[in-house]
Amino acid sequence: MEDQISKISDAANRMRISSIEQTAKANSGHPTSSCSAAEIVATLFFSEMRYSGHACPILYAAWEEAGLLTREQVLTLRKLNSDIEGHPTPRLSFIDVATGSLGQGLSCAAGMAYTGKYIDNASYRVYCLLGDSESAEGSVWEAAAFASYYKLDNLVTIVDVNRLGQSRETMIGHDLFTYAKRFEAFGFNSIIVDGHDVADLLKAFDEARKVTGQPTAIIARTLKGKGIEGVEDKDNCHGKPVTLDKAEIIASKLGNNTTKNSWELENLIDDAPQVDFEIGKIKMSSPPNYQIGEKVATRLAYGNALVKLADTSKRIIALDGDVSNSTFSDKVLNKYPQQFVQCFIAEQNMVGVAVGMSCRGRTIPHASTFAVFFTRAADQIRMGAISFANVKFAGSHAGVSIGEDGPSQMGLEDLALFRAVPNSIVLYPSDAVSTEYATELAANYKGITFTRTGRPNTPVIYPNDEKFEIGKCKVIRQTNEDKYLLIGAGVTLYECIKAHDILSSEGIQVAVIDLFSVKPLDNQTLIEQAKRVGGKVLTVEDHYQTGGIGEAVSLALGDVPNVRVRSLCVKGF
Amino acid sequence: MEDQISKISDAANRMRISSIEQTAKANSGHPTSSCSAAEIVATLFFSEMRYSGHACPILYAAWEEAGLLTREQVLTLRKLNSDIEGHPTPRLSFIDVATGSLGQGLSCAAGMAYTGKYIDNASYRVYCLLGDSESAEGSVWEAAAFASYYKLDNLVTIVDVNRLGQSRETMIGHDLFTYAKRFEAFGFNSIIVDGHDVADLLKAFDEARKVTGQPTAIIARTLKGKGIEGVEDKDNCHGKPVTLDKAEIIASKLGNNTTKNSWELENLIDDAPQVDFEIGKIKMSSPPNYQIGEKVATRLAYGNALVKLADTSKRIIALDGDVSNSTFSDKVLNKYPQQFVQCFIAEQNMVGVAVGMSCRGRTIPHASTFAVFFTRAADQIRMGAISFANVKFAGSHAGVSIGEDGPSQMGLEDLALFRAVPNSIVLYPSDAVSTEYATELAANYKGITFTRTGRPNTPVIYPNDEKFEIGKCKVIRQTNEDKYLLIGAGVTLYECIKAHDILSSEGIQVAVIDLFSVKPLDNQTLIEQAKRVGGKVLTVEDHYQTGGIGEAVSLALGDVPNVRVRSLCVKGF
Repeated sequence: MEDQISKISDAANRMRISSIEQTAKANSGHPTSSCSAAEIVATLFFSEMRYSGHACPILYAAWEEAGLLTREQVLTLRKLNSDIEGHPTPRLSFIDVATGSLGQGLSCAAGMAYTGKYIDNASYRVYCLLGDSESAEGSVWEAAAFASYYKLDNLVTIVDVNRLGQSRETMIGHDLFTYAKRFEAFGFNSIIVDGHDVADLLKAFDEARKVTGQPTAIIARTLKGKGIEGVEDKDNCHGKPVTLDKAEIIASKLGNNTTKNSWELENLIDDAPQVDFEIGKIKMSSPPNYQIGEKVATRLAYGNALVKLADTSKRIIALDGDVSNSTFSDKVLNKYPQQFVQCFIAEQNMVGVAVGMSCRGRTIPHASTFAVFFTRAADQIRMGAISFANVKFAGSHAGVSIGEDGPSQMGLEDLALFRAVPNSIVLYPSDAVSTEYATELAANYKGITFTRTGRPNTPVIYPNDEKFEIGKCKVIRQTNEDKYLLIGAGVTLYECIKAHDILSSEGIQVAVIDLFSVKPLDNQTLIEQAKRVGGKVLTVEDHYQTGGIGEAVSLALGDVPNVRVRSLCVKGF
Repeated sequence: MEDQISKISDAANRMRISSIEQTAKANSGHPTSSCSAAEIVATLFFSEMRYSGHACPILYAAWEEAGLLTREQVLTLRKLNSDIEGHPTPRLSFIDVATGSLGQGLSCAAGMAYTGKYIDNASYRVYCLLGDSESAEGSVWEAAAFASYYKLDNLVTIVDVNRLGQSRETMIGHDLFTYAKRFEAFGFNSIIVDGHDVADLLKAFDEARKVTGQPTAIIARTLKGKGIEGVEDKDNCHGKPVTLDKAEIIASKLGNNTTKNSWELENLIDDAPQVDFEIGKIKMSSPPNYQIGEKVATRLAYGNALVKLADTSKRIIALDGDVSNSTFSDKVLNKYPQQFVQCFIAEQNMVGVAVGMSCRGRTIPHASTFAVFFTRAADQIRMGAISFANVKFAGSHAGVSIGEDGPSQMGLEDLALFRAVPNSIVLYPSDAVSTEYATELAANYKGITFTRTGRPNTPVIYPNDEKFEIGKCKVIRQTNEDKYLLIGAGVTLYECIKAHDILSSEGIQVAVIDLFSVKPLDNQTLIEQAKRVGGKVLTVEDHYQTGGIGEAVSLALGDVPNVRVRSLCVKGF
């Protein structure tokens, strides 16, 4: 035990030195936060193992100590073309979720722990290193409430209370007791420790492993820049590299013992089962079953499709933010309660949990709420994309078509939000048949998808065996005399059809496209049809102008000669 | 006292009846939440007065009881063309901030209370009615931490613990003690009451008034649908109107006393001072003072301008999320600490506080952080717009030009986010001179503005007395032989100038526009210049495609014959 403690303490100091060297070499980065967390990370790595966390030089240093990264690799920190970035991302094999936007780690960790406890029924435990400054983010408390409600005793968060934020002291400084009180009020077991005392840390991790029925928060008192002379516990040193000679002072503490340990890391017990799905081959248990002309809300069709996916895999999971009776994800709750996760009214955490549940391909999370409420979790969605997360989003109650609930409940920016996500897919089906296929297509795409559904009942226009593809629209009305091209989606498609019928009765022929795939756009068909009708295109959408269908189509057709695009969209409240 | 209690209890029942009638008539709305909050709202209105808070029928009923609205008006609830919307907005004179997206009220209330205590130095108190379901939103805890840190003893929140959410019971049901513990851990004085007992409520409000140095949370045990037979405390009744005969049962409790009281409302003590600014006439204390060619980061120029605005009014307020030493809002902190509000790392609350501080025109809040971190508060910004809030946002570290901090820190969706805000102004200055004028222009626009600033030092290109306008771009290079039009802003403007110089040396002339005003666009100049050069336009931006400059310009020029637009933008991480 004594031997283990001194080995870990020495490792912590070597990691400190490495962090200082990485950031000095890069002339950029966060050595001070790395030094406050050195013993915590060393104890986790060389006794407990597994983690989640921007004090990343210390993380890279730990992997160096463990032998996965070389000194040469870690010294490429923050260089162009290096995967050793200033804030870690899953470009690195040992990173599951990206960090750098604060206060999101605990939600992801809770999603992983939920999966471990309830889906994998496996023994793995999840550790989340949290900065004290970032605990001001409300998302941390959403995650804490979730973790205790679901009794996630396989989850441990370690709060690195180093007192100092970027610009000044945090709200509660070194008041460890208040941190403990907050976590206890949110249902955690809490343990206060000296975060630079390896023995204290080992004892706390040991206690946490024995606690049942609740997660544990280890509140660790640390000093920012610990070990760096003239920097330790000093304000205004955040994100500032120091000179290499500071490393020597730390090295002197180690005596001659500056050579790396050879660690005998314990073998992982991997008792998580194989997953029961293969992306690309996921099928609904039965095809859509509607009558042409039957009026069905697309949100209802989404619920139907989700159940038919859940029929085929125990790892199709529905996540809800207390509106499952509106989005119809409650169909999964009713048939497969173990495949439904109620996240209550905390959309940020719902998205973070979904990102965590998707890690390592353990599940395919489908998170749904009103389209507009994803705006609340915009930053989590952004970070989910940087994490290469495989999460399916579905937003109901899109646009002003929801009516009397008022502007606060209308999704009018959701297409922009999800189009802006790199590598995302955005589908906007107009009837029940296309909605079911959209849901199936989304489940088979690895990455972030968004499916927009509507509140009102709209007629079924496609036969049950129609084929839909990501990146393909449907030309639903065309003649050889078409003078205009109308492009709609969702409720506006029906308005385009009405316009077509009226104009047709007046002898004016127009083509109508059901856009279906908002991202990627079916540029080829759009260009062909625009040219075919003589270049006059009108987009009609239930969304604001910014980042919506009109702008997307305008840019796509922007460089096509003799094509002109006009847009009808929502202009104000 | 007994008389007051029974008068208020009777009023609460009449308000219950009115809420049932409003929602029955509309066949839509939330009678059950209105019934749980009836005594709370009645006590507030007819003893304490002032509020903030979707159980709005009870709010309308209270104003009816108070005589401001007539029965005929309140019965237009949720009708088209009626301001009596399903979720209240400031279209109504007695509403300062819009609600409907949950968990935002306490931040706004905290902003009002901060203004009352520290800016107005006035006696007014702020009351915030909070639903128990919405307390799962992390933004509530951001606000709580803020309110206690700043010792807002003029702030009272009443938590209507009616146990039931929309789809099921909340996480902690009627566990009042846990609510109290959470608020206490976040620094509040807490009082547990029976929310249907007017005497209990009166006592709690009285106690709250006597507490100094901390805000108070009144945790009120209520029953959802209280008084509605067959609905009271029953699951699955959220947002469902009931039949009018339910109102009769409640009426029977009142005996013959169903006629409205005539309330002698106490006169308001308005001891808040006059504000010292007039929107439209706000000037910096001195004009920009740079040399052409001098390299200055636009974020630094923003800090300079903000101080020069603060010089002229005590009510120009800078709000920060612990990055003031990066955004340079710390220049205000250093010169006028009382005009600087540190909101720590809690962007949602920062925006909510800013919305609250702008209410009733008391201050002009300037909230700044890294551009990307406004994504965290996208929903608060959206609701701020629905509240017609007058808040100035400034986002620094825009785009990939920030370099080695990695994708999580890059603002690449910020133009889309702020362009999507109805009636917003989005300015993107390229040099220090234009940044100072942009900041001054924003301060003089009543509504939401966003100014995008950058991290790197860029050369000053405008003389100190150049004139800038909202909605006007600058044509900075043009000849009679121009064959292309390049449109840039920020760092990309300098790339456009370089391209111009290289092409010019090769004998190819191109015009260059500094866009400056991203919203509204200067359509007239853009169209004129596009036609003048023969129709070939290239936009260059440090932002994703979605909702950025390329899409905005493409749509603006989409219907102009013989104009073609191409876009260069950021395509991935």
